[in-house]
Amino acid sequence: MKTAKKEKFEDLGLDTKAVAKGYRMLNKDGTFNIRKQNVSFYERINIFHSLVSMSWIRFFTVLVFGYLTINIVFASLYTMIGTENLTNIRGTNALDQFIEAFFFSAQTITTLGYGQIAPLNLPANIVAATESLLGLLLFALATGLMYGRFSKPYASIKYSSHALIAPYQEINGFMFRIVNPKRNQLMEVEVTVTLSLKRDGTELRDFHLLELERSKVVFFPAMWTVVHPITDLSPIYGTTEKEILEKGAEFIVMIKAFDESFSQTVYSKSSYTSKEIKWGEKFIYLPKHSGTEVTIDLSKINDTYKAALS
Amino acid sequence: MKTAKKEKFEDLGLDTKAVAKGYRMLNKDGTFNIRKQNVSFYERINIFHSLVSMSWIRFFTVLVFGYLTINIVFASLYTMIGTENLTNIRGTNALDQFIEAFFFSAQTITTLGYGQIAPLNLPANIVAATESLLGLLLFALATGLMYGRFSKPYASIKYSSHALIAPYQEINGFMFRIVNPKRNQLMEVEVTVTLSLKRDGTELRDFHLLELERSKVVFFPAMWTVVHPITDLSPIYGTTEKEILEKGAEFIVMIKAFDESFSQTVYSKSSYTSKEIKWGEKFIYLPKHSGTEVTIDLSKINDTYKAALS
Amino acid sequence: MKTAKKEKFEDLGLDTKAVAKGYRMLNKDGTFNIRKQNVSFYERINIFHSLVSMSWIRFFTVLVFGYLTINIVFASLYTMIGTENLTNIRGTNALDQFIEAFFFSAQTITTLGYGQIAPLNLPANIVAATESLLGLLLFALATGLMYGRFSKPYASIKYSSHALIAPYQEINGFMFRIVNPKRNQLMEVEVTVTLSLKRDGTELRDFHLLELERSKVVFFPAMWTVVHPITDLSPIYGTTEKEILEKGAEFIVMIKAFDESFSQTVYSKSSYTSKEIKWGEKFIYLPKHSGTEVTIDLSKINDTYKAALS
Amino acid sequence: MKTAKKEKFEDLGLDTKAVAKGYRMLNKDGTFNIRKQNVSFYERINIFHSLVSMSWIRFFTVLVFGYLTINIVFASLYTMIGTENLTNIRGTNALDQFIEAFFFSAQTITTLGYGQIAPLNLPANIVAATESLLGLLLFALATGLMYGRFSKPYASIKYSSHALIAPYQEINGFMFRIVNPKRNQLMEVEVTVTLSLKRDGTELRDFHLLELERSKVVFFPAMWTVVHPITDLSPIYGTTEKEILEKGAEFIVMIKAFDESFSQTVYSKSSYTSKEIKWGEKFIYLPKHSGTEVTIDLSKINDTYKAALS
Repeated sequence: MKTAKKEKFEDLGLDTKAVAKGYRMLNKDGTFNIRKQNVSFYERINIFHSLVSMSWIRFFTVLVFGYLTINIVFASLYTMIGTENLTNIRGTNALDQFIEAFFFSAQTITTLGYGQIAPLNLPANIVAATESLLGLLLFALATGLMYGRFSKPYASIKYSSHALIAPYQEINGFMFRIVNPKRNQLMEVEVTVTLSLKRDGTELRDFHLLELERSKVVFFPAMWTVVHPITDLSPIYGTTEKEILEKGAEFIVMIKAFDESFSQTVYSKSSYTSKEIKWGEKFIYLPKHSGTEVTIDLSKINDTYKAALS
Repeated sequence: MKTAKKEKFEDLGLDTKAVAKGYRMLNKDGTFNIRKQNVSFYERINIFHSLVSMSWIRFFTVLVFGYLTINIVFASLYTMIGTENLTNIRGTNALDQFIEAFFFSAQTITTLGYGQIAPLNLPANIVAATESLLGLLLFALATGLMYGRFSKPYASIKYSSHALIAPYQEINGFMFRIVNPKRNQLMEVEVTVTLSLKRDGTELRDFHLLELERSKVVFFPAMWTVVHPITDLSPIYGTTEKEILEKGAEFIVMIKAFDESFSQTVYSKSSYTSKEIKWGEKFIYLPKHSGTEVTIDLSKINDTYKAALS
Repeated sequence: MKTAKKEKFEDLGLDTKAVAKGYRMLNKDGTFNIRKQNVSFYERINIFHSLVSMSWIRFFTVLVFGYLTINIVFASLYTMIGTENLTNIRGTNALDQFIEAFFFSAQTITTLGYGQIAPLNLPANIVAATESLLGLLLFALATGLMYGRFSKPYASIKYSSHALIAPYQEINGFMFRIVNPKRNQLMEVEVTVTLSLKRDGTELRDFHLLELERSKVVFFPAMWTVVHPITDLSPIYGTTEKEILEKGAEFIVMIKAFDESFSQTVYSKSSYTSKEIKWGEKFIYLPKHSGTEVTIDLSKINDTYKAALS
Repeated sequence: MKTAKKEKFEDLGLDTKAVAKGYRMLNKDGTFNIRKQNVSFYERINIFHSLVSMSWIRFFTVLVFGYLTINIVFASLYTMIGTENLTNIRGTNALDQFIEAFFFSAQTITTLGYGQIAPLNLPANIVAATESLLGLLLFALATGLMYGRFSKPYASIKYSSHALIAPYQEINGFMFRIVNPKRNQLMEVEVTVTLSLKRDGTELRDFHLLELERSKVVFFPAMWTVVHPITDLSPIYGTTEKEILEKGAEFIVMIKAFDESFSQTVYSKSSYTSKEIKWGEKFIYLPKHSGTEVTIDLSKINDTYKAALS
């Protein structure tokens, strides 16, 4: 976004200017605090996306519920046709026959086909042939969804709970830590930090792209402290903790990387509001060297110590 | 397309210069008004593309029709061989036997295999073993197609029905709105606007890449008003509504984005002809703030109000 | 490859300098005339790539042959165990029993399982349970391969049979035509042309990246004439047809594009040797306008007319 | 990583500065010598990644073990319910019945369903219907995993066993060879070489991005000798073999390419420590021309000859 450095407004593709002081545009989990009204169900919905994104528990609930429903529908069809069209139906009352038809349907839709019960005449044969085709297609769908769910890449980056304003070289810097807890290799990791600030005396907001000490790394094996040096070109140069709070600052972070495990580009988003910044603290130094290996204790990524600002 | 800014001709990879005034190169839905002649069927066809792109209704029609055809073919084979090679065929006339063979075929190709009817002798066994292999392969294909259809990404971007020539800062601007109605997150959205203008006194057309206020945004959660500021460098600087109509202007829009749901790059195309531009109107301001959330009413993206041009 | 313009040698990632005059590095179909010796089978082989790239006929031959082989192996196992472990084996001699075991195997590996023949005792049950698991896994593999084959993207770009040296604006230009015969939409098409020339008085070869009139287009709906203007900066400025032949010139073309149908980046490669260049001819103008549509007759992309060089 | 050239520290996204002399950050196989402590199992684990990355032997062991376990679980369920709920159970003692239930389970989970044994009453029907659904889902999973494993791209690039400091043009150069032994076509290959050097008198390390003769090639059909010319701007200009050893130099190589077979971007990583560098040797010239073909003997990529340094 090289050309955007000179721009101040609407930097994030949202025509939002007037937002209140306490407002957080981006939540910690990377979702936006924006609600779209009057979008038709058809426009909004994305079945594949929903089925791939929902939790496993919900996904299996949908599957099991669908399986039961389909079998009830087909069991009803078989009983409507008459269970005399099926071999070996032993039930003598309607309920028993329905139950047997239900399990015959289950054996058909899964293409299990024990054959202990089998269709005898034309009507039952038509329904069974239809059901088995439907079963194959639904199963084809389920296969695709399972693969889609499993192979869906996600940047599993963890952020330090707070950002810091800490001494950095001769000056100060705004900094936070990111960690890659997975064994997945992240390559060519790029970080963008955009600062949202309330314009003085108004409720309008300006967006500033922050210059970083480094905005891209080739590998990202474990940990990275992202630093915005507060030079005199920085929009927060010379501002105090109180001013930052008053301006309702929000530091919006976007990380782009290539995940080698999934062979896919992945994105991670998060933000730090003015209340999530600690002033005059520094991250402790974590890497420990032991012979031929470097060890990093990821449980300590939030640990800081006091450090006088310059 | 940095290097193309200085270029005027053939900007879109098409050797088309002489096109009539009323011609529209790109339709609203992103398809081109270009017909290729004398392309052999083999060169033109792309079976996967066709099966993945066709409507669901047509796709299922193809599936059902294929299923019926294959079963008719195999039923014919079984009856040709003689249904005495199958167990439990009860039909005594040719039609009844064909019907029973048909359903036996259906049970075989879906690998259902109730076994109520089963192949007895060598000829029937050969056909059945072939059919079940074919069934598995066809089903493998269907699985791939279902997944291909479902996971096919598409940029679901909605465009405002009209573009506007509206006051913009000290000058005027050409602007239109784009909206992301889905919950899918679009990242790193890039917009390119190319203007096609009839060259004065000829039927030739020049293509101009328009400079935009902003051509890329990091996130695209909801809405974006794309603006081409009409500075003195703009090809439409100083032109009137009448001139734009006479020159048969067409503003060709291409949007490129990364869809996080599909982990894929997606493209969206559309165009505005000179008749789809409103002069001296401005889009109403949509975002509404309510405590901790911003609300945008997407049903109003086409709403404008009068605004005197500068 | 901006930084490579100043480079002359080894431009294509191959340490080849001494190549004879008649040598063609890149074939018309995009394969290289390079043979790698002493690469172990294990290093060279890529089973997935082979199975996905081979022709459909060969692929199905492999499938059918594999299906027969596996069934023969398992039929042998069942007969070794003794067909008395299977129900309803009616054959009384070894061959008949083997044939019945063969088809029982086919019914098992496809998970068809009519049940007319079924395993009775422990040994047959173990083999059958193993075979059905193997069947599922092999079928899983086949599904993946079918999908891989079908969804494999390829740039279906067609090249004009000859390149031309033709008048271009005030000077001359080296030009060829490319055509997209498919309905697939190609986006952001980039062309690179590298010229390989024998160094005077030696058998060494220099590689020159040629400057193009335009190296990238946003859309590629139908046809594009790629032009290298022969300015005084061009490596072929002032050379004659005879010199080009003597220098064994080879124009190596690489095209990169994003195929919207497959949502994938695709590459196409080809080359023109000095014998495939026509001097003093121009491509005829193809687009025809008919009301609201442009028509292009792709059967005429090689048609040229005489044009005096400047 | 253009902007990183001026940077010296933390170049690889790792806050590691103090590392001992003998330490190797990147192993020959592209894995890092970094251990992450106190990462919870849930944070660390990536089931899909594990199942797709593990060796085929281990993958099949997991599959077979899982298959046995599931069948034991369901066999236990069927015997708990009572095998009188299944048809044709012939065993008279608990073990025999369990074994028969085990194979009935195998026939159910693979949807084989011979039907010789079949569920008779409600409890067995419920378990069998559940098992067949589970079977389909597990098989859907296995299909996805098989495809994921097979279609997982990897850069199969081979590195020369040693890097060389050899005469290069008027000066010296650091060089190594890379080879593409597969038939896969690698396109747009980019190389990055980062040098890690111990800072004098400390245990801290500086990272330097090395300027290369060429950092990108369009095609990579066979072999490429990557060269870092040791100009006076190079961090190793004027250093001796002894100094390089003392500084514990590590040359970290990253290669990025587009694999046309997999239509995917692939990465390859490796490194050369100071002990893996030969001074004053040159790679022998390999390409051999035979009529219309160039032959390269890849078994000789490590062969060198003495060459006096300049």
